[in-house]
Amino acid sequence: MSGILYVIGTGPGNPDQMTPEALKAVADSQSFFGYFPYVDRLNLRPDQQKIASDNREELDRAKAALTRAAAGERVCMVSGGDPGVFAMAAAVCEAIDAGPDEWKNVELVITPGVTAMLAVAARIGAPLGHDFCAISLSDNLKPWDVITRRLKLMAEAGMVIALYNPISKARPWQLGAAFDILRDALPPTVPVIFGRAAGRPDERMLVMPLGEADAERADMATCVIIGSTETRIIARGDRPDLVYTPRFLSAEKR
Amino acid sequence: MSGILYVIGTGPGNPDQMTPEALKAVADSQSFFGYFPYVDRLNLRPDQQKIASDNREELDRAKAALTRAAAGERVCMVSGGDPGVFAMAAAVCEAIDAGPDEWKNVELVITPGVTAMLAVAARIGAPLGHDFCAISLSDNLKPWDVITRRLKLMAEAGMVIALYNPISKARPWQLGAAFDILRDALPPTVPVIFGRAAGRPDERMLVMPLGEADAERADMATCVIIGSTETRIIARGDRPDLVYTPRFLSAEKR
Repeated sequence: MSGILYVIGTGPGNPDQMTPEALKAVADSQSFFGYFPYVDRLNLRPDQQKIASDNREELDRAKAALTRAAAGERVCMVSGGDPGVFAMAAAVCEAIDAGPDEWKNVELVITPGVTAMLAVAARIGAPLGHDFCAISLSDNLKPWDVITRRLKLMAEAGMVIALYNPISKARPWQLGAAFDILRDALPPTVPVIFGRAAGRPDERMLVMPLGEADAERADMATCVIIGSTETRIIARGDRPDLVYTPRFLSAEKR
Repeated sequence: MSGILYVIGTGPGNPDQMTPEALKAVADSQSFFGYFPYVDRLNLRPDQQKIASDNREELDRAKAALTRAAAGERVCMVSGGDPGVFAMAAAVCEAIDAGPDEWKNVELVITPGVTAMLAVAARIGAPLGHDFCAISLSDNLKPWDVITRRLKLMAEAGMVIALYNPISKARPWQLGAAFDILRDALPPTVPVIFGRAAGRPDERMLVMPLGEADAERADMATCVIIGSTETRIIARGDRPDLVYTPRFLSAEKR
């Protein structure tokens, strides 16, 4: 008999942004794997077991969850945001790919969620209203020169750029370096959004022009969105500015 | 007195993938604007008014909704998926930007949702597990040569590519042309996912190598995801194949 492995996303942290589908997976599960703060977002019953761990232990966590599911347990792997965007779904697939055959027989149910860039975009307007990309700034799993090259090509292509994992204690300089690369390729007026903890009580939204963008305004809970030359700011008097990227290209670029 | 304009996303169509936040906005609203099939997903009360319209009328729809909200009404603008991804949030911002001052005073509440590429990715594995981009293939609002250029740069950068609006009666050849462009830049073995109506009863997931990718397999309800050279397929015997992009780059590319 084989169990089930759910891989869910809690959304950015506001309980109202977690889907009913993910909540049903939680209700059906016996044990919960994930990074501490994400597992702690769930209101578990006394009969449900938490097996939280640190980040940077994704592959071991995936293997432990698959081992239990293959033994017949109903297991839930918990990501923040969406599990498929720089999160646990890929780590689970990597473990299945390299693991014993019985892991391929585990019933795998991945439920999508609201990923950080969508929550940040919604709070500020519509910066992702036109073509965009999502890049993890972590050089733990890919070399920095690949990131550099991708940033240059994204700017050349006119894409709005969402940066995940922008900064951490172990990676303090990468975001500043990314801003420098983009300042060489884009006008200094391009808006940069620092969206921290979107939808949570400690939310903080900040917009500054690329020319003045200061990496110290970001932390691990921040998603940074860099506009394109098309991205516009609407001043609204007493209300916060809106930032959006029109669906069309302006006439001179057509 | 000014009303409120909610801009919500229903998710891809499975009611269990719509957030409680969006449902609360629906409960609080008096009138509903949007493309017919999206508005029809909602279970409205008899006192709530539907003002559905065709697609390609986004800007007029945004103006009509803002006019009502500025007059004090509680109005809901309904998108499928996430409202900020090739959907109504940008059209509403465009209307505010160009409209009368009173529209800037309207309370605007945008609620994020599960966008199509996330729902498709969850059903098939984790194709968006590494850096990726989202491009609308519609050349109604931008010229085709911009799309061509972007596709080439995305392939050069090694991004996984999600294509929105891949095909329609009015745009029958663009997806085939996009595959041809990508076949010049990527190996024929790169997996292409045709994800139709993810999470709905009429869902259909199809994976084929880029070398054989056939544009006729897509329709308006399809999100097409083109893998990178890193994207892998896991055969699982009786279960459907998994498609995923590892979080790390393979050794020879580091």
